[in-house]
Amino acid sequence: MVVKVAINGYGTIGKRVAHAVTLQDDMEVVGVTKTRPTYQAQMAIDKGFPFYAAAKEHVAGFKEAGFEVEGTLEDLLDVAEVVVDCTPGKKAINNVKMYNDHKVRIILQGGEAHETAGLSFNALANYEKCLGAESVRVVSCNTTGLCRTLYPIYNEKKEENEKKIGIKNVLATMVRRSADPGDSKKGPINAITPVLKIPSHHGPDVQTVIPDLNIQTLAVAVPTTIMHLHCVAVEMKRPVPAEDIIALWEKTPRVRFVKGSEGIKSTAEIMEYARDLNRDMSDMYEIIVWRDGVNTKENMLYYYQAVHQESDVVPENVDAIRAMFELEDDNMKSIAKTDRAMGIGK
Amino acid sequence: MVVKVAINGYGTIGKRVAHAVTLQDDMEVVGVTKTRPTYQAQMAIDKGFPFYAAAKEHVAGFKEAGFEVEGTLEDLLDVAEVVVDCTPGKKAINNVKMYNDHKVRIILQGGEAHETAGLSFNALANYEKCLGAESVRVVSCNTTGLCRTLYPIYNEKKEENEKKIGIKNVLATMVRRSADPGDSKKGPINAITPVLKIPSHHGPDVQTVIPDLNIQTLAVAVPTTIMHLHCVAVEMKRPVPAEDIIALWEKTPRVRFVKGSEGIKSTAEIMEYARDLNRDMSDMYEIIVWRDGVNTKENMLYYYQAVHQESDVVPENVDAIRAMFELEDDNMKSIAKTDRAMGIGK
Amino acid sequence: MVVKVAINGYGTIGKRVAHAVTLQDDMEVVGVTKTRPTYQAQMAIDKGFPFYAAAKEHVAGFKEAGFEVEGTLEDLLDVAEVVVDCTPGKKAINNVKMYNDHKVRIILQGGEAHETAGLSFNALANYEKCLGAESVRVVSCNTTGLCRTLYPIYNEKKEENEKKIGIKNVLATMVRRSADPGDSKKGPINAITPVLKIPSHHGPDVQTVIPDLNIQTLAVAVPTTIMHLHCVAVEMKRPVPAEDIIALWEKTPRVRFVKGSEGIKSTAEIMEYARDLNRDMSDMYEIIVWRDGVNTKENMLYYYQAVHQESDVVPENVDAIRAMFELEDDNMKSIAKTDRAMGIGK
Amino acid sequence: MVVKVAINGYGTIGKRVAHAVTLQDDMEVVGVTKTRPTYQAQMAIDKGFPFYAAAKEHVAGFKEAGFEVEGTLEDLLDVAEVVVDCTPGKKAINNVKMYNDHKVRIILQGGEAHETAGLSFNALANYEKCLGAESVRVVSCNTTGLCRTLYPIYNEKKEENEKKIGIKNVLATMVRRSADPGDSKKGPINAITPVLKIPSHHGPDVQTVIPDLNIQTLAVAVPTTIMHLHCVAVEMKRPVPAEDIIALWEKTPRVRFVKGSEGIKSTAEIMEYARDLNRDMSDMYEIIVWRDGVNTKENMLYYYQAVHQESDVVPENVDAIRAMFELEDDNMKSIAKTDRAMGIGK
Repeated sequence: MVVKVAINGYGTIGKRVAHAVTLQDDMEVVGVTKTRPTYQAQMAIDKGFPFYAAAKEHVAGFKEAGFEVEGTLEDLLDVAEVVVDCTPGKKAINNVKMYNDHKVRIILQGGEAHETAGLSFNALANYEKCLGAESVRVVSCNTTGLCRTLYPIYNEKKEENEKKIGIKNVLATMVRRSADPGDSKKGPINAITPVLKIPSHHGPDVQTVIPDLNIQTLAVAVPTTIMHLHCVAVEMKRPVPAEDIIALWEKTPRVRFVKGSEGIKSTAEIMEYARDLNRDMSDMYEIIVWRDGVNTKENMLYYYQAVHQESDVVPENVDAIRAMFELEDDNMKSIAKTDRAMGIGK
Repeated sequence: MVVKVAINGYGTIGKRVAHAVTLQDDMEVVGVTKTRPTYQAQMAIDKGFPFYAAAKEHVAGFKEAGFEVEGTLEDLLDVAEVVVDCTPGKKAINNVKMYNDHKVRIILQGGEAHETAGLSFNALANYEKCLGAESVRVVSCNTTGLCRTLYPIYNEKKEENEKKIGIKNVLATMVRRSADPGDSKKGPINAITPVLKIPSHHGPDVQTVIPDLNIQTLAVAVPTTIMHLHCVAVEMKRPVPAEDIIALWEKTPRVRFVKGSEGIKSTAEIMEYARDLNRDMSDMYEIIVWRDGVNTKENMLYYYQAVHQESDVVPENVDAIRAMFELEDDNMKSIAKTDRAMGIGK
Repeated sequence: MVVKVAINGYGTIGKRVAHAVTLQDDMEVVGVTKTRPTYQAQMAIDKGFPFYAAAKEHVAGFKEAGFEVEGTLEDLLDVAEVVVDCTPGKKAINNVKMYNDHKVRIILQGGEAHETAGLSFNALANYEKCLGAESVRVVSCNTTGLCRTLYPIYNEKKEENEKKIGIKNVLATMVRRSADPGDSKKGPINAITPVLKIPSHHGPDVQTVIPDLNIQTLAVAVPTTIMHLHCVAVEMKRPVPAEDIIALWEKTPRVRFVKGSEGIKSTAEIMEYARDLNRDMSDMYEIIVWRDGVNTKENMLYYYQAVHQESDVVPENVDAIRAMFELEDDNMKSIAKTDRAMGIGK
Repeated sequence: MVVKVAINGYGTIGKRVAHAVTLQDDMEVVGVTKTRPTYQAQMAIDKGFPFYAAAKEHVAGFKEAGFEVEGTLEDLLDVAEVVVDCTPGKKAINNVKMYNDHKVRIILQGGEAHETAGLSFNALANYEKCLGAESVRVVSCNTTGLCRTLYPIYNEKKEENEKKIGIKNVLATMVRRSADPGDSKKGPINAITPVLKIPSHHGPDVQTVIPDLNIQTLAVAVPTTIMHLHCVAVEMKRPVPAEDIIALWEKTPRVRFVKGSEGIKSTAEIMEYARDLNRDMSDMYEIIVWRDGVNTKENMLYYYQAVHQESDVVPENVDAIRAMFELEDDNMKSIAKTDRAMGIGK
């Protein structure tokens, strides 16, 4: 079976999910949408994706600019089995009725409310809960990042003979990029902006995936475009040496280590590393942990991780499709399949 | 009595301490030093400070550039009672013997090791310990910032009828500016750099002033020039409502509130506020706390504070001189006197 | 005679003009307006300026926030003789009828079209044309900057025994700051944005003040907040050595030299210099020319100048008031008087 | 014939040239060097390049860190026919004797002096002059950028029936990035820095390739990492409409148009475009010209172009090898062959 996927919104996330889907053998892109005749729209066409206007009112703009469209989003939904909604934050809720009317399954992104989908998804933490689901929300880049490193420590699903660790509580401070690299409008140029609402939305958002995790988050936005950086303090249920945590993460998919001692001092060198790996779009799908920044003191664990805001959720969208259509029942198998196709690996 | 003060190193901190001393009636600047004939050196002369070469080898450079010098640092020490060493970090240790030989008291800055002075100073937290001291170190801008807001909560010196709060532990994440505004060399331009050593030096540094405070600190450097921002989580010894903490800080000198709801969203607007207050050099000597970012949940207190790295230690240096020469025995009186002279206030 | 001045819009320019007016002995501020109860509004009140709502619809917002207002803009106009319109760009045109109805003279800022006022003003270049005018427009920060250094070279009003230079044509490339220091919204964070319309508006704008000057301008915006920098190439009517140009500018008010060789390498050190000078708000009203960046080759003159976008037009507004009310007929005398009051000088 | 290429210095340029050479069928990489065991060194090994220490003194460092080296640079030179020196600026001169002793041909980069090689190279402008050369210098990224767009206008090698344009003089203002994306040390964070030496080195550098071109250049460095931007004014020998210039560049290899009207407003969107094109390392080898920023007025031509400092010289290095070994006599054929292999195209 090859699942027919529609991408509504060929932007930062949409164009990456479209590309990632084309790399899989059990799903295909049947169309993408765009609202305006920009160079990004031209790129979608040049790549051979069936191209649709996001709504009727956009058709004229495309025609004027000499773009051919296959129809509108509604036409696209007629030939799709699932729609990945990659429209800007908080807008997807207006599309849900249309999606339901067209009887397509729905994937929303992390900018939407959990309630809009009813189920929030992270491939590592709760894949099996989303098997066969009609509608899921892939959590945001930051939430995905926290799930990937916290879940293995939290995880209570251990075999008898494995020693559980467990988490009493987490305090994560998120140092956020303020704009994406291709954005020339948003600032600030020279300021640090705190998120005054405490906890920031990230903590409760992790709980949509790992309900019993006790987590608080603080957040600030800073003048950089390339990655978020998380400063994480975890109170574990028992003392664990740093090496054990490192060993645990070495077995965890989509977590990757770098070392300051090898010259990776900042998020700048990480993104350069992604270029060196010759990843598509120079993306870094994995959560990056500084190995020489992992530290434990009795029950406490401290670490720094970096999150590539544009791409870490992309393989998660692929896995979400696979879970919803029950193409694969085991999360580790889906993750491995996705990662192999996308060139993600240790 | 008017204490004769030498400033060794007329740079970011030195020029501000020199100016602050001239505003006091119980101390005066008898000279400042510089190593090279830059516009900053010219400025020191234009302001009328007796001007000395920092060492013999620098005299020729000044002469060539047409600068008149009164002599060298050693000459200056002969006419001073105390030297405020504002040389770049980790260099002051090499000057200590010379200072002792000239029988001047010594103030070091926070870039130096605690051990070099033996005593670390914060006017609010341990003024009385430094009364009559021969040598003290004014702690760094970040440590000063943490002391100002944490000490009132920690403080065990309460009267019988006041209810103590107390602190079980603190986790502070320091989001640091990477260069000062007048610096056109240092970067990064587009990166976040974690301080991989955990805890960062800030936590132990606070303990040089408040020895029994249980504090951990993480730190990252970001591409901004204007302020540090601290994200602070405090586990208090008992539940306290946010309003009580706000009331406590309202009574605390050199802590100032701003509100996001009044348009102060980031460090950019804070520094604009300092300009609006028409402070000398547009400095903000107070630690700035976002009032609408103070949050409590049971025993936990969360808040954001911003630290003007160039100036918050300046009034502390004035108080340190006053303590060392026992010009004033009560810290609150010294603080009030300094603040009145410098225009610091609520 | 003391001219009664209303400031409509107490923002970046408005608050500076208000302050500058209070420093003069022949004019006074009778009120300022604001639209919302921000910290800037509070600051206006704290400074003692009679405070008005910019329009009726804003009164409720102020009352709710506990601000007392003296009335609205229309009430303010009743007690004023001239209004300095410092509202955001392109909005002043809507206010002109109201101003005329209240029979106040009008000063607009450089963001408005020349035609709205009919007369554009630069104190050095065309003060005398604005004597007694009902309405003038003080040209923008960049235009002001170009006028200050180009006019003395262009100037044809020379005495018989002075040798004229004259300009055949100018090409200036403006490297613009993208946001002001107190702005935490605008970007870009990491991009250079060309102004694709050629010539940029700056060239024609200079011609509103110096009609016969042949000038072309190109412009790019860059991720900095503190100053614009102009790269200027002038084809003069005859070969002139660099020293003569420097000598000419040394006699020109509101032009100031710095030297790279003394450590002023960039706009960062210039703004630090303004702080060292202890200017109000750390402003730099003068156009800054790098003395060691002035270069001539036969008829060609090349130089770099930096413009403090927030403040260079402020003394020009003061002079404009003086010209309009004929408080002083000679431009050099008005400039000298303004500069003395504001602490501007060589 | 397959030319054996050594890369001395596997850094920003070196790693790209190594990769580009592997994509060609007439040359191969026989080894790369590095000085320290960083992640970049590991990457060279992971990619399968024979790996050498840049000098004997570096061998121990590699061994300690567990890196295997094939030998030192001198060993590598023994198996190479040409060395591409990609060491940091101004250091290559010290290597020339060693290269000569090992009888390898030499390619230097644009950071070196023209005299060190004696011949400077740009594939479009002077390929044929370098046929069979023992030593050439590929000019810098900025000089390459200027050559690519100016040469077609300047070009006097036209056929009889083509109408020549010709250039009287050029003034280019270079707005430079201050650090590369993977660099987390260099600043400034918030400043514009003029290059006070006039003309900047770029103008004379263009003349090493196009000796008779009359060109002046000014330069400023700004806080961005991703591209340089050139503001160019050309006085042509006769009036030419903008469309003709555009048509000329459309036929020119390695020049590519973008449009502001299609959403490419700044260098940020250009680099995003390179990612969308899925270029290796997200590089943009072509010089980018804003089509809607090309403007003519009588004899004058104005335009903006953006230069990807990390990659535009990479295909030039490939062509330089081809010219030196006379693998191809015609520059347009070499350019076409290189571009096909690297995926460069319109």
